Amino acid sequence: MVTHIAVEPSVTRALLERFHITRKRSVSLTEGLSEEDCCVQSMPDASPIKWHLAHTTWFFETFILEKLEADFRPHHQAFRVLFNSYYNGVGNKHPRAQRGMLTRPSTDEVIAYRHNVDARMARLLESAVAQGGHTELATLTELGIQHEQQHQELMLTDVKHLLSMNPLFPAYAEGVPAIIYSARVPELLWIPMEASIVEIGHASDAFCFDNETPRHRQFVEPFSLASRLVTNAEYLAFIEDGGYRNPNLWLSEGWDLVRTNELTQPIYWHQGDDGAWHEYTLYGLRRLQSAAPALHLSYFEAEAYARWAGARLPTEFEWEAVAAKYAITGDTPSLHPHPTQQAGLTQLYGTAWQWTSSSYAPYPGFEPAAGAIGEYNGKFMVNQYVLRGSSCATPAGHARLTYRNFFPTTARWQFTGIRLAKSSDRAPAYL
Amino acid sequence: MVTHIAVEPSVTRALLERFHITRKRSVSLTEGLSEEDCCVQSMPDASPIKWHLAHTTWFFETFILEKLEADFRPHHQAFRVLFNSYYNGVGNKHPRAQRGMLTRPSTDEVIAYRHNVDARMARLLESAVAQGGHTELATLTELGIQHEQQHQELMLTDVKHLLSMNPLFPAYAEGVPAIIYSARVPELLWIPMEASIVEIGHASDAFCFDNETPRHRQFVEPFSLASRLVTNAEYLAFIEDGGYRNPNLWLSEGWDLVRTNELTQPIYWHQGDDGAWHEYTLYGLRRLQSAAPALHLSYFEAEAYARWAGARLPTEFEWEAVAAKYAITGDTPSLHPHPTQQAGLTQLYGTAWQWTSSSYAPYPGFEPAAGAIGEYNGKFMVNQYVLRGSSCATPAGHARLTYRNFFPTTARWQFTGIRLAKSSDRAPAYL
Amino acid sequence: MVTHIAVEPSVTRALLERFHITRKRSVSLTEGLSEEDCCVQSMPDASPIKWHLAHTTWFFETFILEKLEADFRPHHQAFRVLFNSYYNGVGNKHPRAQRGMLTRPSTDEVIAYRHNVDARMARLLESAVAQGGHTELATLTELGIQHEQQHQELMLTDVKHLLSMNPLFPAYAEGVPAIIYSARVPELLWIPMEASIVEIGHASDAFCFDNETPRHRQFVEPFSLASRLVTNAEYLAFIEDGGYRNPNLWLSEGWDLVRTNELTQPIYWHQGDDGAWHEYTLYGLRRLQSAAPALHLSYFEAEAYARWAGARLPTEFEWEAVAAKYAITGDTPSLHPHPTQQAGLTQLYGTAWQWTSSSYAPYPGFEPAAGAIGEYNGKFMVNQYVLRGSSCATPAGHARLTYRNFFPTTARWQFTGIRLAKSSDRAPAYL
Amino acid sequence: MVTHIAVEPSVTRALLERFHITRKRSVSLTEGLSEEDCCVQSMPDASPIKWHLAHTTWFFETFILEKLEADFRPHHQAFRVLFNSYYNGVGNKHPRAQRGMLTRPSTDEVIAYRHNVDARMARLLESAVAQGGHTELATLTELGIQHEQQHQELMLTDVKHLLSMNPLFPAYAEGVPAIIYSARVPELLWIPMEASIVEIGHASDAFCFDNETPRHRQFVEPFSLASRLVTNAEYLAFIEDGGYRNPNLWLSEGWDLVRTNELTQPIYWHQGDDGAWHEYTLYGLRRLQSAAPALHLSYFEAEAYARWAGARLPTEFEWEAVAAKYAITGDTPSLHPHPTQQAGLTQLYGTAWQWTSSSYAPYPGFEPAAGAIGEYNGKFMVNQYVLRGSSCATPAGHARLTYRNFFPTTARWQFTGIRLAKSSDRAPAYL
Repeated sequence: MVTHIAVEPSVTRALLERFHITRKRSVSLTEGLSEEDCCVQSMPDASPIKWHLAHTTWFFETFILEKLEADFRPHHQAFRVLFNSYYNGVGNKHPRAQRGMLTRPSTDEVIAYRHNVDARMARLLESAVAQGGHTELATLTELGIQHEQQHQELMLTDVKHLLSMNPLFPAYAEGVPAIIYSARVPELLWIPMEASIVEIGHASDAFCFDNETPRHRQFVEPFSLASRLVTNAEYLAFIEDGGYRNPNLWLSEGWDLVRTNELTQPIYWHQGDDGAWHEYTLYGLRRLQSAAPALHLSYFEAEAYARWAGARLPTEFEWEAVAAKYAITGDTPSLHPHPTQQAGLTQLYGTAWQWTSSSYAPYPGFEPAAGAIGEYNGKFMVNQYVLRGSSCATPAGHARLTYRNFFPTTARWQFTGIRLAKSSDRAPAYL
Repeated sequence: MVTHIAVEPSVTRALLERFHITRKRSVSLTEGLSEEDCCVQSMPDASPIKWHLAHTTWFFETFILEKLEADFRPHHQAFRVLFNSYYNGVGNKHPRAQRGMLTRPSTDEVIAYRHNVDARMARLLESAVAQGGHTELATLTELGIQHEQQHQELMLTDVKHLLSMNPLFPAYAEGVPAIIYSARVPELLWIPMEASIVEIGHASDAFCFDNETPRHRQFVEPFSLASRLVTNAEYLAFIEDGGYRNPNLWLSEGWDLVRTNELTQPIYWHQGDDGAWHEYTLYGLRRLQSAAPALHLSYFEAEAYARWAGARLPTEFEWEAVAAKYAITGDTPSLHPHPTQQAGLTQLYGTAWQWTSSSYAPYPGFEPAAGAIGEYNGKFMVNQYVLRGSSCATPAGHARLTYRNFFPTTARWQFTGIRLAKSSDRAPAYL
Repeated sequence: MVTHIAVEPSVTRALLERFHITRKRSVSLTEGLSEEDCCVQSMPDASPIKWHLAHTTWFFETFILEKLEADFRPHHQAFRVLFNSYYNGVGNKHPRAQRGMLTRPSTDEVIAYRHNVDARMARLLESAVAQGGHTELATLTELGIQHEQQHQELMLTDVKHLLSMNPLFPAYAEGVPAIIYSARVPELLWIPMEASIVEIGHASDAFCFDNETPRHRQFVEPFSLASRLVTNAEYLAFIEDGGYRNPNLWLSEGWDLVRTNELTQPIYWHQGDDGAWHEYTLYGLRRLQSAAPALHLSYFEAEAYARWAGARLPTEFEWEAVAAKYAITGDTPSLHPHPTQQAGLTQLYGTAWQWTSSSYAPYPGFEPAAGAIGEYNGKFMVNQYVLRGSSCATPAGHARLTYRNFFPTTARWQFTGIRLAKSSDRAPAYL
Repeated sequence: MVTHIAVEPSVTRALLERFHITRKRSVSLTEGLSEEDCCVQSMPDASPIKWHLAHTTWFFETFILEKLEADFRPHHQAFRVLFNSYYNGVGNKHPRAQRGMLTRPSTDEVIAYRHNVDARMARLLESAVAQGGHTELATLTELGIQHEQQHQELMLTDVKHLLSMNPLFPAYAEGVPAIIYSARVPELLWIPMEASIVEIGHASDAFCFDNETPRHRQFVEPFSLASRLVTNAEYLAFIEDGGYRNPNLWLSEGWDLVRTNELTQPIYWHQGDDGAWHEYTLYGLRRLQSAAPALHLSYFEAEAYARWAGARLPTEFEWEAVAAKYAITGDTPSLHPHPTQQAGLTQLYGTAWQWTSSSYAPYPGFEPAAGAIGEYNGKFMVNQYVLRGSSCATPAGHARLTYRNFFPTTARWQFTGIRLAKSSDRAPAYL
């Protein structure tokens, strides 16, 4: 699952602090929401907010407390099944599509569950600090924190989907991380890269998920990568040019989807009777912003747009190669990605996850962790595509250069956008 | 929809009182429930409690206030669509299967909606009292009250279904109307009836739904009707005799359902590892009570049981003929059905709706009311079967001799049971 | 299943002759068809022609030869499963939806199967003639003949459906029984009937299916029945008046179907780019004939048309009462229905099956036959509606006054039409 | 689509000969089949034999005759729609799932269509020979031949699937290409390969499909490849070890499939009441051959087996690298793959298509051909996995080193098997 991380008292103390910060942030994300908003499941792919709050707690209880707590007793026996997501190795699971049926336990009971587990985790971590560190505890706690950060992003995507189904188009809240983009769209530059062997995957001692390892070599043929994401205005031009009506622009399976579901625009776009376009956002329904990045696109939409634009999607190796090369020296992109980049490269992180043409697959030599925790990533390595970067909904400090997000080609409710690429016939003109 | 009812000030005053009582009871049914319990939809056939609270209010606002209020303004424009159930004549509808997505408006907002409409209804009715009565207002208010009573029963069936899907098997509440049955099961008597022309349908000036009219004649061949409902012990004998494994006992479509859904028992029955049977009830999971009536059976289950028992289901005309004949003199069965009957006939009302073999169809000469309100009953008159009597979940005063409830043959979440019948070859021995 | 029929040598001899005629007719229906036409199954509701040829043979082999033949040995062991339709009592069945997968046995092998069974049946029947008759053999042979006649109609409806799915719109053949209608449409008369107790169901010693028994009494309130069927021109007026766009004309379930399947016209109607209407027939695609009866309508379409026309569908009892009353004296309507009737009543038989508003249910006192043969009718008595009369595809001599055909409300591929009815408030003006 | 091929009269003459051979072979594949066998479609993924015969003809007519014939007139206007498979650029298509409905045109008419197109093609090609060659004609004819060879393999897989659904388990024929395997299974060797940059993709002037281009570089980390395919005996051990009951062996999506479809064994395996295993083959049902390669496995089955065996599937680059390296010198593996290989490497070609872990994606710099013919490959490059080698059903001369076959992960009806791979930590021990 993870490479074991170095442990000293100071490290463990910092971990304890990050544990508390992370745990509090999850709850704070529910501030503008009612109990009802937190309970309902809008589709099988999404989970209720309350379930996220409980499942992230279950994760600490199951993979840390049960293993390392002296006289472990589960907070509530039934929660062990109710909030298991997909870990077959741990026992029974409550069916995913029925997570929204769990009106009980109440939100208060779930919060009590969180407090209980938080207190027990704090005791364990404090005791480890006192004893000079505990490698396994530190490793698993870091994993639990990262896992919870992933669910924080899902809480935002899932609640956005739920609220979008309400004809009243309610706003989620005002305090949501905003998408950073300038009102003036910078010119799209093509950042070239020569043919080369590149090193791909996680290298440092810092945390990463198992799917980012092992670091290995890939050969990359010459290509260019777009300096920024596709904008709403550009995507609208695709629509107005008949993008959703032309089968030649789509992968065969994507076209079937367009026809079957009568798709004509991105999931959260609405066109008024007057022809004006609006977009449902976490702030409610807003006039479509031309300069903003086009969001919530499926792989099929991204791929069709790229074909229409005379380009293609990058592979995940191309993306990582360029991102690694043009990160500002002295920056530590693996932990603190920064929106300002050399070479005009922007919006790598913090705006939208960027579809790549790479099917989600194990790196050469990949070995999942032993036990149930090894079910984390590997068993999803089929029929999904890798997304790189991070989005406006990704928690601070969660993204990194080698991060591999993944979703099925049909997923439209994530903060997903498009960065284009092009193959080159000759040596790049740039540099 | 309804026959117009007599109106005098005293009648209108009584109506106002019943209006308030009915409206309060709906809210009181939610007392043991959380906001989450009230919001979630467990299946397309069921609706959230909150939706029931709002829709019954919408009914008064749409069919009475909009028509009779001097300067009508809807409480909230969007509610007109959100809480319309199926009245095409009124305008757009929110899709039935997405009622559970409505986390907004909140329960508080729905309660405010109720208060607003209640106050405006009270003003209208008080003004009518002052003016000596208003036929249309009285007629429609009575209809609104009856409509809300129907939804009160659905609130109980729907919340029971929702809570039953929770592995914690939470209890709904303690104050629920209990099923009246004696611990000792009375002997099952066959109450005979000679061949005769019987008058079927509503006769008095009191309220009834349009589907109970017009009163007309049916010829009934000689038969006998069971004096009581089938018990849990009897239904268990059917199961233990292989009832769910023998295709010869089932209608062809029912057998397909048994096979496809791997049915082995009623929807709320559970068998423990020790072989002991339990039943989920509104009080939580309870040991199966032998003497209690078997409940929550589909038409297919009821029909298969009857075949296994060497009997059949009665027609709705047979049911009404016997119920009319053996009602205690001096009783007014049409408004105040009484569980004690002559001839040993019991459990007609207040225990379980009783499946009949009659497909739900218009009576000869049936005419639905004009306008949208005419969509109330008639358009469901196909592929559903009539249930007679009333259940432990039916509000007091709602049942009557000529009442026609109806559900599809697959419905299992209603309080539905079995009363058997038999055709006779000869003149009945009884009397 | 059947009332036992009188048996004398002459009766058995006549039966043998009808057996041969019926068996030959089934094969002659395939004359214009290729082996491919006979093998393909166009939808789960329809069966391949070859399957019909084999299944009707299986019926004689299973229910007569196996029981009465001295040293019974099945023609082919596997056929016992392959060509069992739905008789659970007989053993395993091949899944209905996979009947079209049976490219083997070949048509030739099925014809050989037919010859084998025909020869064995002939021996049995001839031996019975020699011995002065055999009640059970005669009874079951009559049933087998009637069963095969039913399948002859299905062969025409099923092959029509198959060929209709071919963009080439091939004709089935020229020798098909034509629909009898005059080029000039007679005025639609309303034939009245007073309130009365009517006797319903089969009365004579002649053959009938079990579902036509027992003869019993029904009370019929005053009403009028249309003298003829609805024409294509009349149904077209319904379409042009927005019939398929107005929810108020449809039963709720029918309207869902219209919307989900985007229905705008009967299943075999096609509108050209020039607006001209055509109808796919067994002779190929033809210009829509105004005076011809509207055919291939579902119950929902028939019911919606009736509402639009200010009328309703008759009950099966109303239909039988009028048909019985106005049959020409001296005629034997139960065996030889005649298109010419008193009172202007036309198109009772031989044109289109006429939907009634009666759900298919057992008559009072109905008892299915013992054993597997008792599965013939009773187990379909739910969620289907009764059709009366007979169609242009019904074999000669098969229809009768008391015949009860039945199909689900969604069925569109049968030769089904509309005869209207109206309830009367007062004594009928006619006579 | 294709690289243009060299054209001289002798080349064109050879092409004409191969054209005739290929066209005749398609028809000869139907020798043991009835018209019914050729018409029925067993599932949407499979097509009827007759449709294959017509569609391959349509391909020549549409992409060659229409373009190059002087006074082109289609053989039959309707065939242009009926036998178009998925080329949106060519016009309308007949729905894939309804190909089995086409009982007309008859097999004879399709054969006549073939003769007509064959004669016209022959005229064109002979005229080209006379004129010294015609580049475009030669290029497209080669493509048409290769296309038809692909369909020859599909004819075998599709008819096998159809016949397998018949409880009689009929044999297809005796003349089928047999799987070459020795009765004694050779020891499984692990053939190692060092880290290296490998050249991938088509290099010569000979024909290839567009998806094999452009030739480009891939970096391959050290690994070993199994010398032979997994046998039935080995796969049976997986089953007997609970392979289909252990979720930890499966990708998450694969496990869902196992559960939903209650999979317990490969699609054509049958276990008798006595526990003996049989396999449906083109020769009929046969006792399972231990030494034979396990066939007809989905990607999920292959991947689960590999995990159980402590190995993994190779990438398509690993497969091609090893196959290229160990091909016997002097052989021309790109056109005439030979089962005997150096290094003990066997069963590369002619036994079973070998699943790779590579998602089907465009090679860097891939450009589909212009026009409708460019729809051939590119638009399926998502959610499918690459298979390498060829199978016992692949026509002679069709396979080559760089060939990329592809199917969805669920496909079980193709001749698909398993070749294992392993990542290496250190320099290989071999050589």
